[in-house]
Amino acid sequence: MQIFDRPGFPNPARIRIVLAEKGLEPQVEFVSVDLIAAEHKQPAFLEKNPSGVLPVLQLEDGTYISEATAITEYLDNLDGDPRLTGKTPKEKAVIHMMQKRAETELLDAVGNYFHHATPGLGAELQVFKSPEWAGRQDWGNRQRDKAVAGMRYFDTVLQDRSFVAGNAFSMADITVFAGLMFADAAGIAIPDDHSALKSWRAKVSELPSVKNRSGQMFVAEDLRRLGF
Amino acid sequence: MQIFDRPGFPNPARIRIVLAEKGLEPQVEFVSVDLIAAEHKQPAFLEKNPSGVLPVLQLEDGTYISEATAITEYLDNLDGDPRLTGKTPKEKAVIHMMQKRAETELLDAVGNYFHHATPGLGAELQVFKSPEWAGRQDWGNRQRDKAVAGMRYFDTVLQDRSFVAGNAFSMADITVFAGLMFADAAGIAIPDDHSALKSWRAKVSELPSVKNRSGQMFVAEDLRRLGF
Ligand SMILES: N[C@@H](CCC(=O)N[C@@H](CS)C(=O)NCC(=O)O)C(=O)O
Ligand SMILES: N[C@@H](CCC(=O)N[C@@H](CS)C(=O)NCC(=O)O)C(=O)O
Repeated sequence: MQIFDRPGFPNPARIRIVLAEKGLEPQVEFVSVDLIAAEHKQPAFLEKNPSGVLPVLQLEDGTYISEATAITEYLDNLDGDPRLTGKTPKEKAVIHMMQKRAETELLDAVGNYFHHATPGLGAELQVFKSPEWAGRQDWGNRQRDKAVAGMRYFDTVLQDRSFVAGNAFSMADITVFAGLMFADAAGIAIPDDHSALKSWRAKVSELPSVKNRSGQMFVAEDLRRLGF
Repeated sequence: MQIFDRPGFPNPARIRIVLAEKGLEPQVEFVSVDLIAAEHKQPAFLEKNPSGVLPVLQLEDGTYISEATAITEYLDNLDGDPRLTGKTPKEKAVIHMMQKRAETELLDAVGNYFHHATPGLGAELQVFKSPEWAGRQDWGNRQRDKAVAGMRYFDTVLQDRSFVAGNAFSMADITVFAGLMFADAAGIAIPDDHSALKSWRAKVSELPSVKNRSGQMFVAEDLRRLGF
């Protein structure tokens, strides 16, 4: 299998954690896509994923799978033991609900703030999204408030449970974790009184699948190019 | 089980089709939520789904499941025969990828156009989204172009396959179908030369799970209240 991604970005990080959780890293070849130079908006990459975003998984039979949720479903089901996406109908439902909520209320909101109200991915890539981007700083700033409300929501959830979708680490935790990584980079802090969210984060950071990978997140070279 | 929804809206329609496909309608009690009067933004509904959107499924044990994808995972797996969400890792991956693409490139794009560049859900509900809504007609109109590009993408896909995610009807078809229903209501036509998409749509409209339900879509009373 091949993974087309870029170390240090939140959606690629989701899949790196899944690969580690499932012990699949040795079976994967990583191909780096230069996101900051907009390589993912060129025809060669758009053939792999017409939506023009990372990560993408290529299966042995040549099929390309994009969308972090879809890639996670694939990898988690390979060994017949889908711990990250759920086994029973109810587990699957709660995990998918919480993971989608983590995207909508946190990860995507942070991304919208980052792209629309900060310098985002820099001038080169902004060319590809300028019509979307122009004049939307006010909207971007409201997305910041949305992300902070999302943090509050997950803090409340984690006051009653050890993990986002219940008592076990799942795809939903990975999305929230990626959302908080992205929030750090975008300069949105977790409010001080969100202690349940903070202790959950400290605990998740120590999981072997997460800890061993954190060195790869937000590669120094790209952070510099992004102006952080 | 209870379903909180409103007949005639695209995300509720997704679940009505799933229930019919799985023969589960007799086991469900439908509770209508007056979306046009913003009942889904009141505290009683926000306790069921803090994101304030329809549909929501309530399980026998009281658990609320929101997000159409999560509800579909639940219902499709109940009988141990997940035809709509896939059985093998690869089927699951392709279906989830295509369904997410159908949301991003079609259903959500139509929704953004509808809410931002048309009168949308009317004055009463707009109160709840006015800061998001104000001054974003230009953005809404770009979302219309995005939706039309999404139609072109699915037309291309359907030139090579009988259904959106392969040779069988799946959750991904349901999302594209709901996206096109919404596009009709929002006044975005399928371009004339998209014949693969059009014949796929004609075929899907005739499926018993879809055909028997189409009378329930876009209830006349709400269409009037929405100004269509
Ligand atoms: N829905 C996609 C989102 C992927 C995504 O937005 N990836 C980012 C990197 S974290 C990207 O490629 N951004 C480049 C761009 O938007 O131009 C998924 O789940 O994989
Ligand atoms: N991501 C949600 C979207 C649900 C959604 O947007 N539902 C619409 C009805 S089709 C809604 O409740 N809209 C009301 C609003 O946005 O105020 C899902 O998959 O269920």
